Amino acid sequence: MKISVERGVLLKAVSQAQSVVERRNTIPILANVLIEAEGSDVTFRATDLDIEVVDKAPAQVERAGATTVSATTLHEIVRKLPDGALVSLTADSAAGRLTVEAGRSNFSLATLPKEDFPVMASSEYASNFSIAAPKLRRLFDKSKFAISTEETRYYLNGVYMHIADGDEGRALRCVATDGHRLARIDSDLPEGAADMAGVIVPRKTVGELRKLLDDDDMEIAVSVSETKVRFATPDITLTSKVIDGTFPDYTRVIPAGNTRKMEVDASDFAKAVDRVATVSSERSRAVKLQLDEDRLILSVNAPDSGAAEEELAVAYGDEKLEIGFNAKYLLEIASQVDRENAVFLFNSSGDPTLMREGNDLSAVYVVMPMRV
Amino acid sequence: MKISVERGVLLKAVSQAQSVVERRNTIPILANVLIEAEGSDVTFRATDLDIEVVDKAPAQVERAGATTVSATTLHEIVRKLPDGALVSLTADSAAGRLTVEAGRSNFSLATLPKEDFPVMASSEYASNFSIAAPKLRRLFDKSKFAISTEETRYYLNGVYMHIADGDEGRALRCVATDGHRLARIDSDLPEGAADMAGVIVPRKTVGELRKLLDDDDMEIAVSVSETKVRFATPDITLTSKVIDGTFPDYTRVIPAGNTRKMEVDASDFAKAVDRVATVSSERSRAVKLQLDEDRLILSVNAPDSGAAEEELAVAYGDEKLEIGFNAKYLLEIASQVDRENAVFLFNSSGDPTLMREGNDLSAVYVVMPMRV
Repeated sequence: MKISVERGVLLKAVSQAQSVVERRNTIPILANVLIEAEGSDVTFRATDLDIEVVDKAPAQVERAGATTVSATTLHEIVRKLPDGALVSLTADSAAGRLTVEAGRSNFSLATLPKEDFPVMASSEYASNFSIAAPKLRRLFDKSKFAISTEETRYYLNGVYMHIADGDEGRALRCVATDGHRLARIDSDLPEGAADMAGVIVPRKTVGELRKLLDDDDMEIAVSVSETKVRFATPDITLTSKVIDGTFPDYTRVIPAGNTRKMEVDASDFAKAVDRVATVSSERSRAVKLQLDEDRLILSVNAPDSGAAEEELAVAYGDEKLEIGFNAKYLLEIASQVDRENAVFLFNSSGDPTLMREGNDLSAVYVVMPMRV
Repeated sequence: MKISVERGVLLKAVSQAQSVVERRNTIPILANVLIEAEGSDVTFRATDLDIEVVDKAPAQVERAGATTVSATTLHEIVRKLPDGALVSLTADSAAGRLTVEAGRSNFSLATLPKEDFPVMASSEYASNFSIAAPKLRRLFDKSKFAISTEETRYYLNGVYMHIADGDEGRALRCVATDGHRLARIDSDLPEGAADMAGVIVPRKTVGELRKLLDDDDMEIAVSVSETKVRFATPDITLTSKVIDGTFPDYTRVIPAGNTRKMEVDASDFAKAVDRVATVSSERSRAVKLQLDEDRLILSVNAPDSGAAEEELAVAYGDEKLEIGFNAKYLLEIASQVDRENAVFLFNSSGDPTLMREGNDLSAVYVVMPMRV
């Protein structure tokens, strides 16, 4: 293999690939990236056996071929090379080395045979559809904060992407929950997605996917089978196993009968929660909400360190209510509100509370109260 | 005590004080800041028993008095209050509480008696002088990287500030070394400093001092005794114990007979060192320098991961030389060069190497070679 690539193009391709590589690997080949050159392209492939990313870049291919080399070392080298440099990669399979050259810099890196690299088996995907990057970004960005980190409840360690009946007909829906809070985000049904099987997209995949979604004009090709999900742009293909488990029936958790409505400026609310939570100890960050005629009093009482109270003007016309929440959960939910006011719907101080953005029913959040 | 202070003024004063407070304290009062209001000022005092910082701010003092309260909690609260808010602090010594009020926010913080706060004993300072902030900044900024972190060699855990014979007469000098590298920085002798006893300013004090030196127009009042050093601006006074030990005779370490001179662009040099060091394992980051007629070859050979080589154009007219250095030390020293070329003076591959910025003798660095 012998190729030349512009440094910026190379950096972008190698960055995306190396981010999938786990820092601590017991299997040496998994620390490597598979470089394959053919025609007028070079591809960089990295995997952790659960996720595989393949990144394609244009290159001058003088001699086709393939090899594998440490992903982090290659990434570090390319990152440190001067902008605009032309980088040549030359594999010497007899010596087991890859030479990286740019200007007066010359690197010789240890390689491992390309045959040892575990390429993910190709799959048949039952559903294939296309969705604009901003829509997919919204689905995952607004739900991922609620992903559980409890390993025993592995079926909650991801975002449940599936088709459901939304407020305005069938919808592509993402749901995440850790049992304390839940996020349910809808987007209009893309063409070809109607029969998609629901899949639980793992946390790490959600993180890697996010890097594909920065370009607002990009269309993302999504393919779903029962065991795998694939997200692809023209240059990057991210394939991931899905979590082998059953996502619980979340619909029962979403309260339908909450009628006590409070409307509040989301930013003011978040700042006030953040302030009163300052006095409480890290562990049990409980914030008490006291609601009365258009008035919300937020308070925290931490016997050791002190107390805090803050009053906010809100729209509330129901009877008096006292309810407590984990401050962190309230903050995370309030920070999801982009444009409109946050609308909270309470029932009693022991029941789950619903939050949405204004009258938009395509993003709904549930948070469990805690005793204060 | 009852006072009102503008939030920005309060934040600045509390920030500086709380940064001295250690995060983990076995003595509860050391987590607190002593607030004292009198006349038209409030002072915030914090200490770790080795360093004391006193920060003064203008305030509307309605009722003079004093109390102590958790430094981090107060800092967090003030930080989160809206900009421009007027903050009132009211101490209720009977209840043992300090009330912090701003707008519709109200905090009640636990206090500890002001009598328990360990105020540092005042001292007689034998030497008192004044120096412009940029000069003091240069002295410490350019030397602190070489401070040792080895606790057994406690007398190297700081910067040795003393009076010495510089290149252009008597000078105020800062020296730091960890045995592998050394920095010696000179500044012209301030009036009144001539008889100053040499003191070792501890690492943490150097860090805290740095925050006082950002304002280029500020004059810093320096006071030195055998056991303490004090740095003061009109608002902030930083008092610190000095390290009770003897700084070694560093002059013997600075080579005087190095004649093989290499001149190189410091930034190009640093970037090249950084690049070739990429292939080596974290532990033994040795970089080999091969010098020949106006040519420098930097190389690293790491049997496991690979090899790297880079050529740089330099000014060098002496005989061939091969010498190895720790990459981190070379990078740190090269990054001290602000404007001019880096001038290296070598002797043999086993001898300490000297580095300076162009022909400026007021900043001199020494680095020990390592075998490669």
